[in-house]
Amino acid sequence: MKKKNKKVNAAILIIGNEILSGRTQDKNIAFIANWLNSKCGISVNEVRVIPDIEKIIVKNILDVSKKFNYVFTTGGIGPTHDDITAQSISKAFKVKYEYHKEAFKILENYYGKVKFNDGRKKMAKMPRGSKLIYNPSSAAPGFILKNVFSLPGVPSILISMIENCKKYLVKGSKTHSKTINLFTVESNISKPMSIIQKKYKKYVDIGSYPFFRLGKIGVSVVCRSTSLTKLKKVNQDLIKMVKLKEIEILKI
Amino acid sequence: MKKKNKKVNAAILIIGNEILSGRTQDKNIAFIANWLNSKCGISVNEVRVIPDIEKIIVKNILDVSKKFNYVFTTGGIGPTHDDITAQSISKAFKVKYEYHKEAFKILENYYGKVKFNDGRKKMAKMPRGSKLIYNPSSAAPGFILKNVFSLPGVPSILISMIENCKKYLVKGSKTHSKTINLFTVESNISKPMSIIQKKYKKYVDIGSYPFFRLGKIGVSVVCRSTSLTKLKKVNQDLIKMVKLKEIEILKI
Repeated sequence: MKKKNKKVNAAILIIGNEILSGRTQDKNIAFIANWLNSKCGISVNEVRVIPDIEKIIVKNILDVSKKFNYVFTTGGIGPTHDDITAQSISKAFKVKYEYHKEAFKILENYYGKVKFNDGRKKMAKMPRGSKLIYNPSSAAPGFILKNVFSLPGVPSILISMIENCKKYLVKGSKTHSKTINLFTVESNISKPMSIIQKKYKKYVDIGSYPFFRLGKIGVSVVCRSTSLTKLKKVNQDLIKMVKLKEIEILKI
Repeated sequence: MKKKNKKVNAAILIIGNEILSGRTQDKNIAFIANWLNSKCGISVNEVRVIPDIEKIIVKNILDVSKKFNYVFTTGGIGPTHDDITAQSISKAFKVKYEYHKEAFKILENYYGKVKFNDGRKKMAKMPRGSKLIYNPSSAAPGFILKNVFSLPGVPSILISMIENCKKYLVKGSKTHSKTINLFTVESNISKPMSIIQKKYKKYVDIGSYPFFRLGKIGVSVVCRSTSLTKLKKVNQDLIKMVKLKEIEILKI
């Protein structure tokens, strides 16, 4: 399926009051975004964090599943009353919310018949037609319906499952990146950098991010492109600029 | 302005390719959400992370500024070519993007006339009619236009500025929270917990979040409400449930 410079994109929907309240620091955005880009050449173009409210989940699922090639949801697939991702996705796509036979068996085997209570059974309920994302940590599978991939919110479990999404994804061109760390301030390089950005507008994105390290202020200049050749050229231009300005380099 | 049980909400727009690419782990969502709730009684109802692309910023600013009482943006107000938040907000609200006299003076004083180059001058350009959010760390102010508050992306600078937003915000009722940490699994308490949630549906939100601590698996049950009385009642019910189930309590 892989073509030269094929752009494939995704959105992430973080579902959970605990992120919106600030109680929990999200760790899934950066992990999923990095994994999608490095392993599948898929770039994340939008992230939304939304509450555990059915009509809001339904609306956002419909919105982003139309706009992007893939959607990854995190959270809301556990056994409790506030876990409503599966029923909301069923509603969004107008399919039945019902026991998934294989998921039911997996969970029944995992817990044993006696301990397989209602809460645990709930984790086998999914939108009709879902494919499973197997879970090597805690058995309860995620699921895929259309272009929506639903994963749990607990980062360690999510990390253990994500490789199982790979075979369902059409790969795109990987975005490569090169970073130059400089001991300078952004405003010292903003003009020449913007000239270089204009020159390579179509192929390379240049971003600059201040940092504080070794007691000094610095800037990371990050270039991103699907073309390694173009990336090298931009890098050469940036190094010329740095030498011309006599800027101290921390790391190229 | 404060009324009993006044609901005031906000959205956060994280503007920056570095968060979407996974290069940078966001820290601003949790900080802003916590600050808004604890200091101003404002709850964050939605977060979006979007790229440094003008038309996308414009669209999202218009979307969320209509839907919520306040919008907080982070990122894109620095001196470089990829800092386009101010010009995008100007475009969204159809006002001129121009030098803000006071911001210009602040920056000119800070850098001195000789070092006040074009990149630095750019940080004084804002939507016409903006109010300033003063910056005690690095001088460059944020700005407020209508219900949109624009802050920088660097967490330490943002933290130093946020108190300066307070006087412009109408306060709401604070959402209080109580957490009970239990050594059990979610599926063991999902049924009684959902009964308690139903009983207090209108007043209290109960969420449950698995944790791993001291080599054991546990669940944090978090109750959130603007009413402390209702919160206490829910807590009593939850403690009854815990005793009935003979669950080990880590912390109430």
